[in-house]
Amino acid sequence: MRLLEERILRDGKVRDGNVLKVDNFLNHQMDIVLFGEMAKEFHRLFQSDNVTKILTIEASGIGIACITAQVFSCPVIFAKKSKTKNIAGDVYTSSVESFTHGGTYDIIVSKEYLKPEDRVLIIDDFLAKGAALHGLSSLVKDSGATLIGAGIAIEKAFQCGGESLRGRGMRIESLARIKSMENGKVQFCDDDCD
Amino acid sequence: MRLLEERILRDGKVRDGNVLKVDNFLNHQMDIVLFGEMAKEFHRLFQSDNVTKILTIEASGIGIACITAQVFSCPVIFAKKSKTKNIAGDVYTSSVESFTHGGTYDIIVSKEYLKPEDRVLIIDDFLAKGAALHGLSSLVKDSGATLIGAGIAIEKAFQCGGESLRGRGMRIESLARIKSMENGKVQFCDDDCD
Repeated sequence: MRLLEERILRDGKVRDGNVLKVDNFLNHQMDIVLFGEMAKEFHRLFQSDNVTKILTIEASGIGIACITAQVFSCPVIFAKKSKTKNIAGDVYTSSVESFTHGGTYDIIVSKEYLKPEDRVLIIDDFLAKGAALHGLSSLVKDSGATLIGAGIAIEKAFQCGGESLRGRGMRIESLARIKSMENGKVQFCDDDCD
Repeated sequence: MRLLEERILRDGKVRDGNVLKVDNFLNHQMDIVLFGEMAKEFHRLFQSDNVTKILTIEASGIGIACITAQVFSCPVIFAKKSKTKNIAGDVYTSSVESFTHGGTYDIIVSKEYLKPEDRVLIIDDFLAKGAALHGLSSLVKDSGATLIGAGIAIEKAFQCGGESLRGRGMRIESLARIKSMENGKVQFCDDDCD
């Protein structure tokens, strides 16, 4: 999506350790007009899939998920990060490895809000090694709902999480796919690496 | 706001310790159509205040803040919860007492995104003892920006955070104000306690 790529080039900052800082418009300050355009693009891609629920993960996925849900006219559920094992049996839970902070954390969704008849679209801001997306897809699978696929704002394609999950049959649509960030310069996949 | 009050009566669940569980529509599963109506009401209340930024706090304030920002045509900033003191000097920081989990945590906002010329509306899902709202207002004050006020979905008026902050001059508009939850029954202030 050209608009998002241009914004990344203009306002994104490459930091050590393959970190792309986009907190000017995506995940600290949020440009809601841009989110509206991204939501339209997600809708164009998934409009024929009869989505009944959008699933995301706290915190930075929530904004894009909510603006996207307006276009799909469906509710959003956000998976909560939890440090304590929930043993009450009223939630679906999955373990996610954190590459940013080290260690693992659990994510949980109440069983009340994911049902076998649901058709779920996952929305998130970033896809890198795919740990969060894999965890979210596990929750959907456990619930018996249908996973339509995932809509991602920015995919770091060189970190291969998307490649791995696509290889296992998941449909993933990323609005900007980054091929490399070498020497502080962002290069997109565009047509040549799809 | 009648629509929100009716929804609280229909789907809210009162739990021990003055907990009102509204995760069916507000802060786990999110009813985006309802959020749209709440956003219009916040706009009706604050439309003449030339709001330039909406400020909220992760995680459950983000959805309402983003839908509200669409109506105001302005960006959202969400304050991040941090367990580590940031000493780089590039953020505004404030300490917030957590009554739910005990202890205190810091909230931070990058100095880049709050400027003296900004006119800030705080949006959040809950107001009880007012600790988070007080922390957010401190960040705005530190930045030199103008705090227009706060738009809150649900205020537990009997916990007096709103009363205290209004007494110090803050404008707070809550869409549903709860007078009591005794015996598991939610009663609203309506006109009689304004």
